[in-house]
Formats: sequence, structure tokens, C-alpha cells
Amino acid sequence: MYIDAQTLYQALINGWIINAEGVIKFSMLGVDQTIKEKSAFGDLIQEWLWWWMSENGIEYRTKENTQEFPDFLLDKTSNEKGLLEIKSFDYTASPNFDVANFEAYVRSLTTKSYRIDADYLIFWYTLINGVVTIKNIWLKKIWEICCPSEKFPLRVQCKQDMIYNIRPANWYSESANYTPFQNKKQFLDAIQGTLNQYHKTSTTHRNWLNEVLNNYKQYEN
Amino acid sequence: MYIDAQTLYQALINGWIINAEGVIKFSMLGVDQTIKEKSAFGDLIQEWLWWWMSENGIEYRTKENTQEFPDFLLDKTSNEKGLLEIKSFDYTASPNFDVANFEAYVRSLTTKSYRIDADYLIFWYTLINGVVTIKNIWLKKIWEICCPSEKFPLRVQCKQDMIYNIRPANWYSESANYTPFQNKKQFLDAIQGTLNQYHKTSTTHRNWLNEVLNNYKQYEN
Repeated sequence: MYIDAQTLYQALINGWIINAEGVIKFSMLGVDQTIKEKSAFGDLIQEWLWWWMSENGIEYRTKENTQEFPDFLLDKTSNEKGLLEIKSFDYTASPNFDVANFEAYVRSLTTKSYRIDADYLIFWYTLINGVVTIKNIWLKKIWEICCPSEKFPLRVQCKQDMIYNIRPANWYSESANYTPFQNKKQFLDAIQGTLNQYHKTSTTHRNWLNEVLNNYKQYEN
Repeated sequence: MYIDAQTLYQALINGWIINAEGVIKFSMLGVDQTIKEKSAFGDLIQEWLWWWMSENGIEYRTKENTQEFPDFLLDKTSNEKGLLEIKSFDYTASPNFDVANFEAYVRSLTTKSYRIDADYLIFWYTLINGVVTIKNIWLKKIWEICCPSEKFPLRVQCKQDMIYNIRPANWYSESANYTPFQNKKQFLDAIQGTLNQYHKTSTTHRNWLNEVLNNYKQYEN
């Protein structure tokens, strides 16, 4: 059975995902230990979700290259709707995952503008003494997890004047300096504003938003 | 007991690391499965080595931030010798790990030139049906795993005229187009040549090699 992202989210909640505890173990040459480092967890939660969905009779497809966007195709046939990305971050820190590579995302929207409507399923976890605990999950659109920043209209990771990744807002925090965008249009405007301001794109990408909106027409119905 | 990288390498070989089989498991909400995706393995092998060394009475230190270079400090007191980095790659592919971020590595050598002598312990593995098998390990210096390329004197990852990472040679292949550097000097010359040719550094980094050699004087003895 294929289900949409909202139904999947609800199924996870109903399946007691919140406060669920997990253990990662690696055994080799007589060493049999639980994993205590956080870096592996992001990869594992995605693979865990494959299993969980299969065990619960939920069908899905993936890209042949599982490193490509998106992590899950929830629609039985379409590669343009039902796109689901999985993100995760540590409960003790602010969201620190990369929403997307800035340049690649900007480029992709001019020809694959349907990606703007992808869903993001986000796991908030702790990893203490080898035990993973899922503290919360969210289902969000990209504009709901992105925000402005002091330097650019879109919060990005910027080192030595080079923009690398789109970085998330603290969307669940009441004390965050910048709150997420209200809608898709605000988010796209913030990308255009960032492109206008960024030295690498300020002369070349003036028409980016129009290209995206033009491309998007074929996916609206 | 603190031991040097060569002794650690030999201890792993003597401890039957080659052809050792390992299993990664993640259990949560009734799903209890072996991990089949390769992306988590690089993180896990490092944590595995922590345990293996502890179980075998081998002492080591790490940086407080374990994401920083190097992965292991093998010397009891010095942070300038006994530096060990861990790398891994899939047996079915060419080496595809990042040796180092190019700009960060280049920058670091001008003030921390001792990093040039760090050891690289490299794991070659397969991951089939959830079973990791270590096919080989190597202990190498950085110049022994780097090589020239057609575009630059040093093989680097270059996208849209931007250099990102230093990429490895196929050092164990007899049919590789480019073989590794013969010595430290060749490797440093290749970096300088790449800096001279790269648009971001061609005017600013003409004196890089001299700076590095100057800095290195204090670590020679």
C-alpha cells in the first residue's frame, strides 16, 4: 500500500515512534559494542525507516542511487510528487543538518521545480550510552524549516565568502532570532535575494525566480 | 601502552584483521536488522578501532572534538607526532574517500607543517547482505596515496572550477593512469603547482611552499 507523507507521519506517531529507544551495535573480531558516536545515526535512521515501512506493509520506491534526492518516493508511479527527505539532529543541539547544497538546490529548481513541494521528515534524537531515543518527529515543507539571517535573506552556511549549504531555522524554538518563512513564495524570494547579493551569482542569476515559476507552471493543477 | 602507527598496523594484521567479518545492527520498535548501506561504515570503523585498541591494552588519545584532524593521537604527550587518520573505502570501487579538504589542508600546513608526516590507516572492505569483510588494510603517508592528474599537478575534486577535496590515487592498482608521488617533496611541489594554476590562489599563494618549509624547520630533528 502506498501512502502519502502525512499518513506516514501519523503511522509513525501511532506506532509509538516518540520515545522509542534503539541500539546500534557493531561486532567484529570479538569486539561487540554499542555505537556511541552520533555521526552514523543519520544514515541509519533512513535505513531503519525502510525496514519499518516494509514491516508495516507500506510501499515506497527509492532512486536507484540512494544518495540522490529524495530519500523516498512515496507515490506508486510519479517521481514528481510524494518526494520525502529524511533529516535528523541531536536533541542537545540546534538543528545542524544541511537542508540542501545551496548551488545544487538553486540549479535543480529551474528544471525540477516540483522539488519545492517535497516533504521533510525530521527526527530529533538523543544518543546516550549507546541508546538512541527519538524525542520528536516533524513533517515539514522546506520553507517551514528555513529562515532569513543577518547576512543573507536566506540562512546559509557561508565560509570565506563562499556559500555552501542551506541551513535550518530553529523552527520549534520560541526564542529563535529568526522564525521560518510563512510560505513558499517568501522562501523563493529569499533565495532570489540571496542570489542577487552573492558575488558568484549577483550578475548571472537575476532572472532565477522567473525561470523557476515558469517551470513550475507545468506541475500546477 | 602507547605504540606507534607501524606497530599498531602490525598488531591489527597479527590480530587477524584481514578477512575479519563484522555485523552492524540497529534495533528499534521491533525492527532488528543488519545494516546494508555503506555510508555508515566509515564512522563505525573508527569507533570500532577505539574499542579494539582498548581491549588490546593499546593506549591513545583523541582531540576533544573527535571530528577534528587527526582521528587518533598515538603519542602519549605530543600533539605533533603520532598523528593517525582513518580512511575506508569499498572493495568494489576505486578509493573514493576525501584525503582532506584542499584549502583547509593547504592553510594548515603553513602553521602546522608537522601534519605532513601523519599516518593514514586505510581499510578496504566489502559490505554484502549486512556483513562487513575487511579485505585489506594499508598504512600510508599522504604522498603515498596522492598522485598527479590531467588537470592539476595534484589530483583534486574540482567542480565548476572550484577545488574542494584532495582525492586519492589508486595506489594498489597496476593499471592506474597516475601513480602516487615518490616522496614528500614531490607531493608538496604538486600542491604548489596546483596553487599556482588555480584561479583562487594563483596570485596569492606563490610563496606557500617556502612558508611550509620554513615552518617545518622547527619540527625536524
